[in-house]
Amino acid sequence: MDSYLIHVNGHGNHAPMLDVNLKNTGNILSSGKVKSRKPRWAVRASEMSKKTFNPVRAIVDSMKVEPNPKKAMISLSLGDPTVFGNLPTNDEVTWAVKEVLDSGQYNGYAPAVGYQSCREAVAAYYNCPEAPLKAQDVILTSGCSQAIELALAVLANPGQNILVPRPGFSLYKTLALSMGIEVKLYNLLPEKAWEIDLEHLESLVDEKTACLIMNNPSNPCGSVFSKSHLQEILAVASRQCLPILADEIYGDMVFADCKYEPIATLSTNVPILSCGGLAKRWLVPGWRMGWILIHDRRDIFGKEIRDGLVRLSQRILGPCTLVQGALERILNQTPPEFYHNTLSILKSNADLCYAALAAIPGLRPVRPAGAMYLMVEIEMEHFPEFKNDVEFTERLISEQSVFCLPATCFEYPNFFRVVITVPEEMILEACSRIQEFCEMHYQGAEGAQDLECDK
Amino acid sequence: MDSYLIHVNGHGNHAPMLDVNLKNTGNILSSGKVKSRKPRWAVRASEMSKKTFNPVRAIVDSMKVEPNPKKAMISLSLGDPTVFGNLPTNDEVTWAVKEVLDSGQYNGYAPAVGYQSCREAVAAYYNCPEAPLKAQDVILTSGCSQAIELALAVLANPGQNILVPRPGFSLYKTLALSMGIEVKLYNLLPEKAWEIDLEHLESLVDEKTACLIMNNPSNPCGSVFSKSHLQEILAVASRQCLPILADEIYGDMVFADCKYEPIATLSTNVPILSCGGLAKRWLVPGWRMGWILIHDRRDIFGKEIRDGLVRLSQRILGPCTLVQGALERILNQTPPEFYHNTLSILKSNADLCYAALAAIPGLRPVRPAGAMYLMVEIEMEHFPEFKNDVEFTERLISEQSVFCLPATCFEYPNFFRVVITVPEEMILEACSRIQEFCEMHYQGAEGAQDLECDK
Repeated sequence: MDSYLIHVNGHGNHAPMLDVNLKNTGNILSSGKVKSRKPRWAVRASEMSKKTFNPVRAIVDSMKVEPNPKKAMISLSLGDPTVFGNLPTNDEVTWAVKEVLDSGQYNGYAPAVGYQSCREAVAAYYNCPEAPLKAQDVILTSGCSQAIELALAVLANPGQNILVPRPGFSLYKTLALSMGIEVKLYNLLPEKAWEIDLEHLESLVDEKTACLIMNNPSNPCGSVFSKSHLQEILAVASRQCLPILADEIYGDMVFADCKYEPIATLSTNVPILSCGGLAKRWLVPGWRMGWILIHDRRDIFGKEIRDGLVRLSQRILGPCTLVQGALERILNQTPPEFYHNTLSILKSNADLCYAALAAIPGLRPVRPAGAMYLMVEIEMEHFPEFKNDVEFTERLISEQSVFCLPATCFEYPNFFRVVITVPEEMILEACSRIQEFCEMHYQGAEGAQDLECDK
Repeated sequence: MDSYLIHVNGHGNHAPMLDVNLKNTGNILSSGKVKSRKPRWAVRASEMSKKTFNPVRAIVDSMKVEPNPKKAMISLSLGDPTVFGNLPTNDEVTWAVKEVLDSGQYNGYAPAVGYQSCREAVAAYYNCPEAPLKAQDVILTSGCSQAIELALAVLANPGQNILVPRPGFSLYKTLALSMGIEVKLYNLLPEKAWEIDLEHLESLVDEKTACLIMNNPSNPCGSVFSKSHLQEILAVASRQCLPILADEIYGDMVFADCKYEPIATLSTNVPILSCGGLAKRWLVPGWRMGWILIHDRRDIFGKEIRDGLVRLSQRILGPCTLVQGALERILNQTPPEFYHNTLSILKSNADLCYAALAAIPGLRPVRPAGAMYLMVEIEMEHFPEFKNDVEFTERLISEQSVFCLPATCFEYPNFFRVVITVPEEMILEACSRIQEFCEMHYQGAEGAQDLECDK
């Protein structure tokens, strides 16, 4: 039976999607009697599921290359600091959860926005005179991803747009597109340590702009905005009456010569939803403990946005109670040396990696000031063999077994991202292989013409 | 400054919502120069957040009553078996998480659909010849709530409708309405132990029906469908080519005289997404460990639905890795006595509660066969003082300090739900207070007319 009844179910206000492939199931059932409605199986995935799209996955999955079997694979691609075991979390963090397990008091449902005592603990931890916080300003979420999802879901409607950094973390776009929200990319400037091109940013604002997403410290850039730059950003948001969704998951993860300022501490009027969590600073991304901090001193969000966040949180009921119960101890008892140690390892790796890559003809790394990443520009004119950063990084895998994410994943071609949480010897080995790779393929100005540039 | 520019941002394909109250912020900023766009702060919560609505919360929050200060409060309202400490989880379950903590191996990101080994463990646990399961048929989620959310999100588009049981768990409607999906309620029949009114069910199907949600064992009914009734449900689904979203979070939680059949074990063609988790059977609802089991032996869901689920899972990245890591041990090492013990307590409480309530003139409890609930009909004609179940249960709080959810929360007026996980002495005390309450307010047929019926 090869005939199909094309089943264009009511798609609400969306145009029917006839361009989607119908499966050839080969085993469609006949119901016996012919009916005018639903006579055949034709289960289709929703449009939302089709619009939910992770560009990193799509690009990485399309990179069909095998590493060089003669060299052990070194992956500098994953923003997960736990992969290599060189950055374990602190014992205090583990003990805190054990204590919760032993108590048996945290197995039941918490309120959808989190236990009151845990919200208080987060509020107290981030409270400061410039940006006071109380328990009711904190919403606990299943990781920072859900914090961003809820913040976006409460601020923007389908058909509106949001401003998103380029280069930037791909989740913003994945979430926005899945909700029918348009993404407008504003430029970061590598020559200005990845500051926002404020003129470009402001030029993108229109009457449909729902919010500005900013990410500081930055993935993938490893950049940290200065106080004065944050004030400039706030000035734009204030002039344009744009609320800010601040992804501050790398908050406080800045190197010693630099200072991290939560943007809310500088805002006098712009309302801010700051998203954070335990993932990076406490080195437990799998635990899925995130939060939204609501900063709204002029009551611009008001009850409406707060109530909206509470309602949205009821859909899946927040993070694991074991981690919630441990939160106060984790925030207050983790020894300062733990954070310092992490940062000094990251800083040392960043310096080594920057120095090594800066010495390679054809590459231009940008020195990071925080987070866990470093971006490297590829002077493509000197690598005429490769069409773009995706081809460059593909060949880096097949020849040198080094995997860096092409920055096309972050909407920023001709760069690649290096993760600096890996052990020092691995960073050095990777840099030396990248050097070998570049030396092999580098073409000076005179040599370039000889090659087929457009393959 | 009291003038407002009403800021109807592009609402996509939705009608502008001018009926929403504008906040009087009282501190709106002037940008200095007059601009035609966005001259004023007017941050509005999204329509999705406004459509996300938990009827239980709304009803309960509107019940503004104080308990009787002379009687200690007994709450039989919360579907959380951990509240009273009489049903702790098994030590094996706790140890499993401790082992994971000690290993330090489960702090990083898992794949968005869960660790492969954990998906395998769930598949192996529920695998059977009639409904075989492999790792790729399992998607791990942040609690069963997220499982239901993902299943619904992949199967239905805005503008479509889904079939939902009445009485039924309120989350189905909360999620559906937030996604713009219409809910059609099909009746369960209390006189037939809450079996589905199949004729009514089938009469609701139209060309926009995306799926049938069924819940077995049932919250709030405590009912368990027989094999033959499940086959009848499958016959309707098959005839109407309707996929099934089976909420089986209370799976295996049935009393000894009864048998639980996962509906997928009886299906020869109907594709099924079965949602479950650790919450109820393992008594750790706060841990937020849920799953979707994909049953699709005729390849009707096919790659499309599977891929859609994977994509949707990438939005918030699945459940806490500490619990994922413990899953295999929890499923395979929890001693059978633990489950038996829980069920024998529930069965004993159910029997006591049923017997006590059945003896009260004016009440008609329906005997449960599983889960953790019991529904009680109020013969409203004998309680003319009360307009409905909400007033009845409100007064039960203010006079007797006993809190049962009015079944209006489940779209089923004139019933209330009793949670039977509380300690026996509390059940008995509650039943005796309910008896006192009913005796106080019961009116025989002749007495009813004397009272003001319509207050």
